[in-house]
Amino acid sequence: MAERVVYLNGQIVPESKASISIRDLGFLHGDAAFDTARTFNGKVFKLREHVDRLYQSLKFLRIDPGMPAEQMAELTGEVARRNAPLLGRNEDYWVSQRVTRGRVDDASHRATVLIECRPLPLKQRAKYFRDGVQLVTSSVRRTPPWVMSPQVKTHNYLNVVMADLEVKSQNPDAWVALLDERGNLSEGSSYNIFLVKDGVLYTPRAQMVLNGITRQTVLELASQLKIPMVEKDVDLFDASASDEMFVTTTSVCILPARNFNGVVIGNGHIPGPVTKGLMAAFSERVGMDYVGQYLAHLGE
Amino acid sequence: MAERVVYLNGQIVPESKASISIRDLGFLHGDAAFDTARTFNGKVFKLREHVDRLYQSLKFLRIDPGMPAEQMAELTGEVARRNAPLLGRNEDYWVSQRVTRGRVDDASHRATVLIECRPLPLKQRAKYFRDGVQLVTSSVRRTPPWVMSPQVKTHNYLNVVMADLEVKSQNPDAWVALLDERGNLSEGSSYNIFLVKDGVLYTPRAQMVLNGITRQTVLELASQLKIPMVEKDVDLFDASASDEMFVTTTSVCILPARNFNGVVIGNGHIPGPVTKGLMAAFSERVGMDYVGQYLAHLGE
Amino acid sequence: MAERVVYLNGQIVPESKASISIRDLGFLHGDAAFDTARTFNGKVFKLREHVDRLYQSLKFLRIDPGMPAEQMAELTGEVARRNAPLLGRNEDYWVSQRVTRGRVDDASHRATVLIECRPLPLKQRAKYFRDGVQLVTSSVRRTPPWVMSPQVKTHNYLNVVMADLEVKSQNPDAWVALLDERGNLSEGSSYNIFLVKDGVLYTPRAQMVLNGITRQTVLELASQLKIPMVEKDVDLFDASASDEMFVTTTSVCILPARNFNGVVIGNGHIPGPVTKGLMAAFSERVGMDYVGQYLAHLGE
Amino acid sequence: MAERVVYLNGQIVPESKASISIRDLGFLHGDAAFDTARTFNGKVFKLREHVDRLYQSLKFLRIDPGMPAEQMAELTGEVARRNAPLLGRNEDYWVSQRVTRGRVDDASHRATVLIECRPLPLKQRAKYFRDGVQLVTSSVRRTPPWVMSPQVKTHNYLNVVMADLEVKSQNPDAWVALLDERGNLSEGSSYNIFLVKDGVLYTPRAQMVLNGITRQTVLELASQLKIPMVEKDVDLFDASASDEMFVTTTSVCILPARNFNGVVIGNGHIPGPVTKGLMAAFSERVGMDYVGQYLAHLGE
Amino acid sequence: MAERVVYLNGQIVPESKASISIRDLGFLHGDAAFDTARTFNGKVFKLREHVDRLYQSLKFLRIDPGMPAEQMAELTGEVARRNAPLLGRNEDYWVSQRVTRGRVDDASHRATVLIECRPLPLKQRAKYFRDGVQLVTSSVRRTPPWVMSPQVKTHNYLNVVMADLEVKSQNPDAWVALLDERGNLSEGSSYNIFLVKDGVLYTPRAQMVLNGITRQTVLELASQLKIPMVEKDVDLFDASASDEMFVTTTSVCILPARNFNGVVIGNGHIPGPVTKGLMAAFSERVGMDYVGQYLAHLGE
Amino acid sequence: MAERVVYLNGQIVPESKASISIRDLGFLHGDAAFDTARTFNGKVFKLREHVDRLYQSLKFLRIDPGMPAEQMAELTGEVARRNAPLLGRNEDYWVSQRVTRGRVDDASHRATVLIECRPLPLKQRAKYFRDGVQLVTSSVRRTPPWVMSPQVKTHNYLNVVMADLEVKSQNPDAWVALLDERGNLSEGSSYNIFLVKDGVLYTPRAQMVLNGITRQTVLELASQLKIPMVEKDVDLFDASASDEMFVTTTSVCILPARNFNGVVIGNGHIPGPVTKGLMAAFSERVGMDYVGQYLAHLGE
Repeated sequence: MAERVVYLNGQIVPESKASISIRDLGFLHGDAAFDTARTFNGKVFKLREHVDRLYQSLKFLRIDPGMPAEQMAELTGEVARRNAPLLGRNEDYWVSQRVTRGRVDDASHRATVLIECRPLPLKQRAKYFRDGVQLVTSSVRRTPPWVMSPQVKTHNYLNVVMADLEVKSQNPDAWVALLDERGNLSEGSSYNIFLVKDGVLYTPRAQMVLNGITRQTVLELASQLKIPMVEKDVDLFDASASDEMFVTTTSVCILPARNFNGVVIGNGHIPGPVTKGLMAAFSERVGMDYVGQYLAHLGE
Repeated sequence: MAERVVYLNGQIVPESKASISIRDLGFLHGDAAFDTARTFNGKVFKLREHVDRLYQSLKFLRIDPGMPAEQMAELTGEVARRNAPLLGRNEDYWVSQRVTRGRVDDASHRATVLIECRPLPLKQRAKYFRDGVQLVTSSVRRTPPWVMSPQVKTHNYLNVVMADLEVKSQNPDAWVALLDERGNLSEGSSYNIFLVKDGVLYTPRAQMVLNGITRQTVLELASQLKIPMVEKDVDLFDASASDEMFVTTTSVCILPARNFNGVVIGNGHIPGPVTKGLMAAFSERVGMDYVGQYLAHLGE
Repeated sequence: MAERVVYLNGQIVPESKASISIRDLGFLHGDAAFDTARTFNGKVFKLREHVDRLYQSLKFLRIDPGMPAEQMAELTGEVARRNAPLLGRNEDYWVSQRVTRGRVDDASHRATVLIECRPLPLKQRAKYFRDGVQLVTSSVRRTPPWVMSPQVKTHNYLNVVMADLEVKSQNPDAWVALLDERGNLSEGSSYNIFLVKDGVLYTPRAQMVLNGITRQTVLELASQLKIPMVEKDVDLFDASASDEMFVTTTSVCILPARNFNGVVIGNGHIPGPVTKGLMAAFSERVGMDYVGQYLAHLGE
Repeated sequence: MAERVVYLNGQIVPESKASISIRDLGFLHGDAAFDTARTFNGKVFKLREHVDRLYQSLKFLRIDPGMPAEQMAELTGEVARRNAPLLGRNEDYWVSQRVTRGRVDDASHRATVLIECRPLPLKQRAKYFRDGVQLVTSSVRRTPPWVMSPQVKTHNYLNVVMADLEVKSQNPDAWVALLDERGNLSEGSSYNIFLVKDGVLYTPRAQMVLNGITRQTVLELASQLKIPMVEKDVDLFDASASDEMFVTTTSVCILPARNFNGVVIGNGHIPGPVTKGLMAAFSERVGMDYVGQYLAHLGE
Repeated sequence: MAERVVYLNGQIVPESKASISIRDLGFLHGDAAFDTARTFNGKVFKLREHVDRLYQSLKFLRIDPGMPAEQMAELTGEVARRNAPLLGRNEDYWVSQRVTRGRVDDASHRATVLIECRPLPLKQRAKYFRDGVQLVTSSVRRTPPWVMSPQVKTHNYLNVVMADLEVKSQNPDAWVALLDERGNLSEGSSYNIFLVKDGVLYTPRAQMVLNGITRQTVLELASQLKIPMVEKDVDLFDASASDEMFVTTTSVCILPARNFNGVVIGNGHIPGPVTKGLMAAFSERVGMDYVGQYLAHLGE
Repeated sequence: MAERVVYLNGQIVPESKASISIRDLGFLHGDAAFDTARTFNGKVFKLREHVDRLYQSLKFLRIDPGMPAEQMAELTGEVARRNAPLLGRNEDYWVSQRVTRGRVDDASHRATVLIECRPLPLKQRAKYFRDGVQLVTSSVRRTPPWVMSPQVKTHNYLNVVMADLEVKSQNPDAWVALLDERGNLSEGSSYNIFLVKDGVLYTPRAQMVLNGITRQTVLELASQLKIPMVEKDVDLFDASASDEMFVTTTSVCILPARNFNGVVIGNGHIPGPVTKGLMAAFSERVGMDYVGQYLAHLGE
């Protein structure tokens, strides 16, 4: 049976042959940047935007990937193409680049570069498109910019992991919403959060969150649909007063939320009209009914 | 030529055969705890204290290592013993356990357990025992407890890496001293910081730093030597007004500092009398002239 | 059938005849202080300590109760005595004084003074003495001293109410543990929180919590039992690393906790040895097996 | 002589017969929301906006008022109408709804709903329209959103009460201006604060204050009058540099300030030209010379 | 008539001939440290302690005074001696050293050194010994250590000047009490603040205030008198609950406070018993009835 | 040889005859405001804007300069005119007003008013126009508005002096960039900081910095050149991701930066295109090639 391949330090190798040294700083310190795009019908969406953001992360971390962005994008396309035949019906991939600071015992500090694909968990997440997600705030607050900018996508993710485990310990179906240092909403476990109130779209300021490519796509679509958009400090009052809420991330694109800290959002119908319009526009933008793809896996 | 061995998930294997899956959460999220002891004359110092702290870190992270602490300590001793013959003259090891949350694609969430040795960088650090270290504060502040407790020893270390790179960009020989959220001194890149003023020993409160095993040993020695000891918020004024400063960590034990942000500490003689007394007591405690071991590598 | 009486503004009246004006500032602004003692075998415990704390709260709020503390204590005793005959078997009272700033339309600003009894919810809380409580942190943080000192016992309690509703929305059986401004543990919904680690008792600094009379009693008992006691900033790491945890408040006295944010505390046996010793000493101190009183109501 | 009536839990009753249970959570914990409109010539202004804000407060507090907003508005109108004949010449009412979480001893948790009128203190405040108010900052800072959003209008008001008492202890005629957590201007004792500088209107961000209905009306009027309007962090420097300052609240509408922390604002003439224009527009908007109404009570 | 002399950059000159260059950094940036002792019966008290603190301030500021501490002390004694004959009956001096970073246009960066005397304002402050001081908190908060340590005595004093002007604008007789960053009491305009509660002496932590020489003397006297002493975060609640309060500074030594934010402290009798004991001990320590000296100027 | 003159308290005197009393509060407390314009070809640029800002600073400090702004501007022009003949070829002046609160021993509190000229350090700074500046962040954070607004230009400058000395201790050629309280970029040692990213100009919010007259001029020029401009919280991530950075201040006008914390900015070419355009527009605006003026002094 065929096996997925990955790019690792100059070579395309079968995934089962690829591994990371126990001396790699990406393992020892989480000292690495990454970025993750996804495919729609097997094609990588906004690949270059993802690679550009990766290079921004790398510059911040002072890691030299040893190749220009163009090459990273080409190699990523190559890895995706080679793995595409292994996709099942109605399936798609996460496609990630991961670049570490190299080995602790390598004086030349040559970066480790990995490009890999992983099937999306469409089946596990299908129900959320039927039911909406339950957002629950954690007592753990999101890492502030003065510790490590949340705009940099790194392998240091324990802050969010701990927040997620905390809310799941009380409700295994909860999706965590972290607050920032000042108690404003920030982001979840790799997803951005949006509110709708009186027809206006609100989302936390980019400084306090990862500025998701899907987040940016939503802002583009909102602009096309003439939905006014405001980035600002959004707090628990705003969440309570909102008509609609949704989350965005590479894998689920736009996904409506049902309640917030146990309280029904708006009138409780999901998706609300603004969310629905954005979801439809997103499907059109990516050339595929992404919601249908998820729902097709319901009951598997 | 003989090769070091490591323990990895139930087996002792040659180090070159040991590696980490690209799907391991320890790699992907730095989602792992570790602890590092060192050997003196090949024998691991305070092994059980290190293992106990490891288990505290694991409990905080909600990672089940799959074995009791006794077994972890025994296995560590075994790895150290097997690798001891490979030590050169005047050499010693770092001995580390590393436990990750396992693989992202493993529903059983079985932890990855690694135990490994690495020779201490005695040669590279010898000069600091001759010259003292230059402590320099970074603008990057240490991760506060409400983001991720610094008392937990994890693979999420970018906050300190970035601080270290910042000060080294201006002075490659600088040792970083991070401030905490409120601008007090916290810790460095895996070392604790001590001040001496009028015969009293001061060090930042345990809540804001890793409570180093060496730090604890210093507190024990200070108690034996009747040196008064205060844990409190220590700031830039205290550093400026101090008579002596030193750093402690597993590898360097107690190491004097020469200046702080470019200003000579005390009268400039290193080590100062209190530091000197503690260093001598430390050597006695570990049964070896650890300073001599470092200095023997000078000029190699 | 007989009815409980209350003291209200100079008169002892049946509870059903006592009420608060819609113009009372205690109602309009929660502009009032109160204190609540409890009876053991119908006798009020530490009445004078509670009244003294009430007068401290009133002084802070600049409310003149219109009578000296002695009189307030006497009247409280009188109300408790008159209501004692109405207690059922194995029952006891909360006994509260409540003093408001008076009416918004009363230029003379005469305080409203109420003294009342209420049966303890022994039946509802009995199971917690069997099972231990589940402590869960809320994302809502406790009011800091610079907004309104938590040491003052007032009718402004929404901060804690909101935190409690948040955690109960995910787990109706959860007992909330609020964090303070800096992410340290503070207090719960009218209870203090204690940790035991290596035989030492820890509890948050008095500045950040109500300095409960039961909390003070525990500190007295710990002193008698030679249990070392430390008031300090206690955080999520300390909770994770603790051997035992318990809560204290007027009604439940000392009550063990079973888990913290879903993680078992210590080895999971409740009450742990230190807690058990304190509970026994508390029963002795109040001259009654208060745990037995609760457990007698199990299964009612 | 006729008496005012109130609506209380389903009935219209004389005010002297209406009262609150000593077991009501609105009294015990200030656990209640309210909203207050006023009449102009006996007619309630922006009644529906006030009721909608009340329902937002109730949703935040998770209190179910037990009736739709339409009914609350109708009942309010009814109460105002019934009480209108009792108004004296040149008088008007505050008209408030107050909804509590019900009784602590009522398992059904049925909300307490009160609707009541109270004559405006026109006489007491008349002099401020002649002299302007003296704004003085308190050392007590305004409750931040992470404790309890200032956008929610509740019966927990001690934070502001304490600030007000503090400044009045030094100057009985002072109007308090609270700073927020970061030292920016927030709001006063139920009033919003505005600054004018170089023809631009500034007011603190809505997140940190109650978003007063009068505040919103001023923003509407400014828009009509083409006065540029900025919501932002406004601090002591901005106050010092301002040409004009005024406060807004339901009762006084727009009221000019004379000095700020003892320093004359602008050139000292009140009202300044921008304030004057807004006051005239406000009178036109409510169909009544509201300033004249106040001044008519001077010297009573 | 004779004139006072000062030491300025190597020379003793008449005060009227001494001045500071308009290019001096001490003038341009307040870039200077100073210290101020006082005389009792013309003799400088704790001169060496003051000079040592000056040198600590200078080290922090990285200013080289160009002479050893011994010489600075000697010169100070000399200046005091020369000016002593000019003291009137019952008069004494402030004696200050002031050292600046030198001139902005002097490449050699030679410090400016000034030593000068100034008669104490005994007459202006006499009434406070009769009446006690009124402490009032300002909305301006004290400079935190991370901006500039309050333990360093510099010519940058605007933060305190602004706080003082703020409270005096409402009450010209008020003595300002600044809060620190977290809302705790810090210090006043060059004086430390003490509270007494149940026989225990409390004062803000040294990190947040100037560690006054008089403050240190009070701690010494408290130790001799067996008065327990605690340095900790002291807040508005502690002030409200205190039995006695007093301020300390070089000029007034120990001076009782009468009220705090307009509320009488304790039972209103000044000085309270603990304060009285300390004042007596202070007089004994300095060999002079310092209170009598002040009171002798009453009515002048 | 001719000497520069200054205005001091009503008189024009030779600079060598002008000095400040050792009793002047401007010296003792840095209790003074100032403003500094510069000349281009001997003519003061934006004099009135500087004087207006001075009067804003004075109002904030509650210092009465004793003359109207018109007169201050006239006197400044007079001083500049009188000193102009002393300028060498290719030279220009800083022209400053300095107003202190007067003497501590002057009951009438008459302000000290000084107006003076100083030649620009064109020679010392010429190389920065050739090489760009190296911006380095300090661990010392900028004074926040709640301590003393950075928008007020005062003689209290130690916070910035200490930050500058800290970075220069590691790299004598570094230009300090201070962070604000929340870790965002604020300002340097009297200069503002700008970033360019994707053709948009960013600069820290005016509240956290001195709102430089040159900063304002850049905003005007950007508007003319249709360069979009955003004032917002700018952090280390933004700096890392920027294409260009530059600093602005009265003396250097617009000066490009080469690297930031040791990392090359953008592609490393200075000045970048947007900066270059603004520099050219600035030269045109002031009627002189200000860069050429600096470069002419290279190699002197």
